[in-house]
Amino acid sequence: MSILVVGSVALDSVETPFGEVEEVLGGSGTYFSTAASFFSGVKLVAVVGEDFPGEHTEFLASRDIDLTGLQSAPGETFRWSGRYGYDLNEAHTLETRLNVFESFRPELPSGYEDADFVFLANIDPELQLDVLRQVKNPQLVACDTMNFWIEGKRDALVKTLGHVDILIINEGETRQLAEDANLVRAARKILSWGPKTLVVKRGEYGVLMFTEHSIFSAPAYPLESVFDPTGAGDTFAGGFMGFLASTRNLSEKSIRQAIVFGSVMASFTVEDFSLNRMKTLEYAEIEERFRKIKLLTEFEGLG
Amino acid sequence: MSILVVGSVALDSVETPFGEVEEVLGGSGTYFSTAASFFSGVKLVAVVGEDFPGEHTEFLASRDIDLTGLQSAPGETFRWSGRYGYDLNEAHTLETRLNVFESFRPELPSGYEDADFVFLANIDPELQLDVLRQVKNPQLVACDTMNFWIEGKRDALVKTLGHVDILIINEGETRQLAEDANLVRAARKILSWGPKTLVVKRGEYGVLMFTEHSIFSAPAYPLESVFDPTGAGDTFAGGFMGFLASTRNLSEKSIRQAIVFGSVMASFTVEDFSLNRMKTLEYAEIEERFRKIKLLTEFEGLG
Repeated sequence: MSILVVGSVALDSVETPFGEVEEVLGGSGTYFSTAASFFSGVKLVAVVGEDFPGEHTEFLASRDIDLTGLQSAPGETFRWSGRYGYDLNEAHTLETRLNVFESFRPELPSGYEDADFVFLANIDPELQLDVLRQVKNPQLVACDTMNFWIEGKRDALVKTLGHVDILIINEGETRQLAEDANLVRAARKILSWGPKTLVVKRGEYGVLMFTEHSIFSAPAYPLESVFDPTGAGDTFAGGFMGFLASTRNLSEKSIRQAIVFGSVMASFTVEDFSLNRMKTLEYAEIEERFRKIKLLTEFEGLG
Repeated sequence: MSILVVGSVALDSVETPFGEVEEVLGGSGTYFSTAASFFSGVKLVAVVGEDFPGEHTEFLASRDIDLTGLQSAPGETFRWSGRYGYDLNEAHTLETRLNVFESFRPELPSGYEDADFVFLANIDPELQLDVLRQVKNPQLVACDTMNFWIEGKRDALVKTLGHVDILIINEGETRQLAEDANLVRAARKILSWGPKTLVVKRGEYGVLMFTEHSIFSAPAYPLESVFDPTGAGDTFAGGFMGFLASTRNLSEKSIRQAIVFGSVMASFTVEDFSLNRMKTLEYAEIEERFRKIKLLTEFEGLG
């Protein structure tokens, strides 16, 4: 089982209180694909410029990510630079240069239209819908978005949500999208637009999942040193979707486990810059941390 | 089994986006005692002024709270007024008038020195230590504090912590007290000063408990409408200590359950102004919400 993901591949420059890096591998599609690749096959649809370093392509290929849909276009690769303060909670964007990403129109390579699992990373909601039109009969569609689209393309976004099973966004975006400060009411409103499941990412506070009939709360793995939060959300989504694709089980029980696997993957990513931690990560470490989150949350019922 | 609590009894004026109230019953000792009274006996040591309305005394007595230690002093009752914005996360204090609380020196009535469970609400750490000196051989001592004492009486506070088993503070206070932005490292530092358990209150994000060898994460009960967060922390502490005193079991298993009971009690308090929700609350509702939090957190292990 493999997942089709459409997103960005970028070169990031990041400053944190603990160090800085220039033009390292980044992008939503990159983080997602790499995390998902620990669980299932991944097909990445994205665009890079002529300047994209071969070593990064080699790394993605080494994760068995199908790169048939990774277009190379004339011009420069998408670049993002940002800075984090000591609280590490929010990135302050210093510069965004879309470059080749500006005119990116995702076209699925032959065979990709049969994808069962689709993840639409944070891109223009019109492009997200355009991708969905190219996919025949997906079993599960999940997507992300951001304040930029909520503010600038609300109607297109709400239309896209009508075709999405799982929306994975952060807490601030949830409130902004629903225009309600209360998360429970905000979730109910968003679910009424189409998604059967809303997964709300809360950074170091973990994840809240909402369905029509239930709520699930998962903690973030408590880390003693967070190095760089860049990509945590996309890594979460990758682990989440990767696990679901590996089990092909879409029960709530399975979705809850997938959320914990997503949290585990995110907890590793933030331990180093870029995808560095992913480069040495072993599956046994993932299971070990899953077990630790289980212990972290357990308490005796009332009998 | 009963708990000795030393704290404040106040008349609060509160503005939230949903309404406002003037001179309603408040205070850390009041919220704590009322919440604890659903689980165990409580002895309240505090001071009120001559203007303290009899109906409030009657309410506390109706909860079977032992008021032998509730002094009445010449002058006015402690008053606090505050305002909350839409996010309801932080109170903006408008005015604090200590009044009779300014010269409060807790003196334990005869018999109180045998207390097994002691909760020192947020008062001057020197007074907290003074109370502990009057208690013979407590089985469990827990305390709270705030930024005011962390900034102004750090040495006295750290000294008091050397005599405390469980410290219950909020997240910002944890970071400030340990002078470390990372919660895991901050917790380790605070535990090195004496407390065996640190309970970190994170408002709508729930609670993290740290011991030398483990971490426990409990979610807040997701509420569709939060009316007034005043007293949530003290109510949490009351439910937490009340449950522990009722079981007399101080195992980690029991402490984890106590944290969930504390969260349940806090979730009720914020549903109305002052202690209004406590006035109609039934024990069956507490158990029902405990069970819901259990369902909220459950996921399948790896086997």
